[in-house]
Amino acid sequence: MDGTQMPAAAALTARYGAGAEPKAGPWNDTIALLLSHRSVRGFRTDAPPDGTLETLVAAAQSAATSSNLQTWSVVSVNDPAVRREMATIAGNQKHIEQCPIFLVFLADVSRNARLAAAEGTELAGLPYLESFLVASIDAALAAQNAVVAAESLGLANVYIGALRNDVKRVAELLGLPPGVAPVFGLCVGYALPGREGEVKPRLPQAAVLHHETYDADDAGHRAAYDPRLADFSRRNEMLGDTWTQRVISRLGTLGALRGRDRLKDALVALGFPLR
Amino acid sequence: MDGTQMPAAAALTARYGAGAEPKAGPWNDTIALLLSHRSVRGFRTDAPPDGTLETLVAAAQSAATSSNLQTWSVVSVNDPAVRREMATIAGNQKHIEQCPIFLVFLADVSRNARLAAAEGTELAGLPYLESFLVASIDAALAAQNAVVAAESLGLANVYIGALRNDVKRVAELLGLPPGVAPVFGLCVGYALPGREGEVKPRLPQAAVLHHETYDADDAGHRAAYDPRLADFSRRNEMLGDTWTQRVISRLGTLGALRGRDRLKDALVALGFPLR
Repeated sequence: MDGTQMPAAAALTARYGAGAEPKAGPWNDTIALLLSHRSVRGFRTDAPPDGTLETLVAAAQSAATSSNLQTWSVVSVNDPAVRREMATIAGNQKHIEQCPIFLVFLADVSRNARLAAAEGTELAGLPYLESFLVASIDAALAAQNAVVAAESLGLANVYIGALRNDVKRVAELLGLPPGVAPVFGLCVGYALPGREGEVKPRLPQAAVLHHETYDADDAGHRAAYDPRLADFSRRNEMLGDTWTQRVISRLGTLGALRGRDRLKDALVALGFPLR
Repeated sequence: MDGTQMPAAAALTARYGAGAEPKAGPWNDTIALLLSHRSVRGFRTDAPPDGTLETLVAAAQSAATSSNLQTWSVVSVNDPAVRREMATIAGNQKHIEQCPIFLVFLADVSRNARLAAAEGTELAGLPYLESFLVASIDAALAAQNAVVAAESLGLANVYIGALRNDVKRVAELLGLPPGVAPVFGLCVGYALPGREGEVKPRLPQAAVLHHETYDADDAGHRAAYDPRLADFSRRNEMLGDTWTQRVISRLGTLGALRGRDRLKDALVALGFPLR
């Protein structure tokens, strides 16, 4: 289990950079595991042990779900042609084709709607943005538990938000009924040797954690973080961009959204009126 | 660490009910911890060890974040008057006043906007529903890591989605700038004796996990689950409702949304145009 032997000081330095560590608190192997997370984009094709998928989903179902509504589902996709098309939708992310387990997490209020229909009633609360948000958060909490379970088993992973580039086509490929929408994908498998990557530094904790009220005076935190991320980037991806540059290139233009500027219309078409 | 010694078979029975267990797979203490999750609504007032808050946030920041945009923040709230008002907003959830750590997780694109303004540019991608969704998912992944870290330290917790009953007032209380919105709260602390609760059974795994395409034929799964949840409810909350009854009472009327039917307008007012 990667990282579980790492002491607090080393783990906090890896996550925040030397000199930027937050106060050290209580520590154990689970926390070491959480801090050692890396997103991995190169997978061996060999499958993990039998029952792994079911274990990951059991962990996912154990996460909190708003009012126990359980407004999420997950599809395990193995069909190579479907994987190939999803990889293309996601901007040619080849690891979607390579990883032994590929999951698509879904915001799903259709199960609740079916239940009501069977009882001869309707759920007045479903057409609201709130219900889509609850379903998306439910899916995210569940998926993160699956990620933690996977990493505890030595399995690398990466979220695929880029499935939202074309949620209507992903929904067609999965045969989703109205009231179900893809939220993101998740690749799971053993990392290819040399592709485990390095822990990515995050913003200083003081930029993210506020006390009592929000503190927007964060220019200094950004100035401290920019060279740290540039160093990481140079070591790992050869670009050497600062965080400032990365954020602007990712969000600065409509084109960078790669179709996700049409997400609202697509969700409405998939049965989420978002009132 | 509660539950970490629990073997797979017992943990799966607790989560799914006798006879409804999914296939058992690989197992370890982390997975046992994840499966043992319970939402707790009664807390001792004594504080956990110094540095616990910082450790939880370090775990939260270690979760994946879309394109490393880090579009979330968290506010630690201790002011008793603010806690009291938030408890009222959340439908009189007294544990918000009792728990030693109360966090409000925020969807936050304002940090990215400030960065762009300082560089003399604008982020064309920000006004879209996609950016709010990314921020909400970022917040959820982060929060779930904090929850797992807390539980690994023996700290109970419960999400407070009901802060969304009035996000505008919560935003005022926290002094949020435009582009920041409360997504949910989180109570953390030691459970009061006798309030640790019991693992809540979830839908059969086959209702949630689909293979290749979505399978909407789930009436049998619901029929099997209804009496299990009614039994749990009778043992723990004295209501004895089935899942079917709970879903209909929670989503059947607009009134049950408790103001969250106005969430969209409130988010627009907080600086998320949701295009």
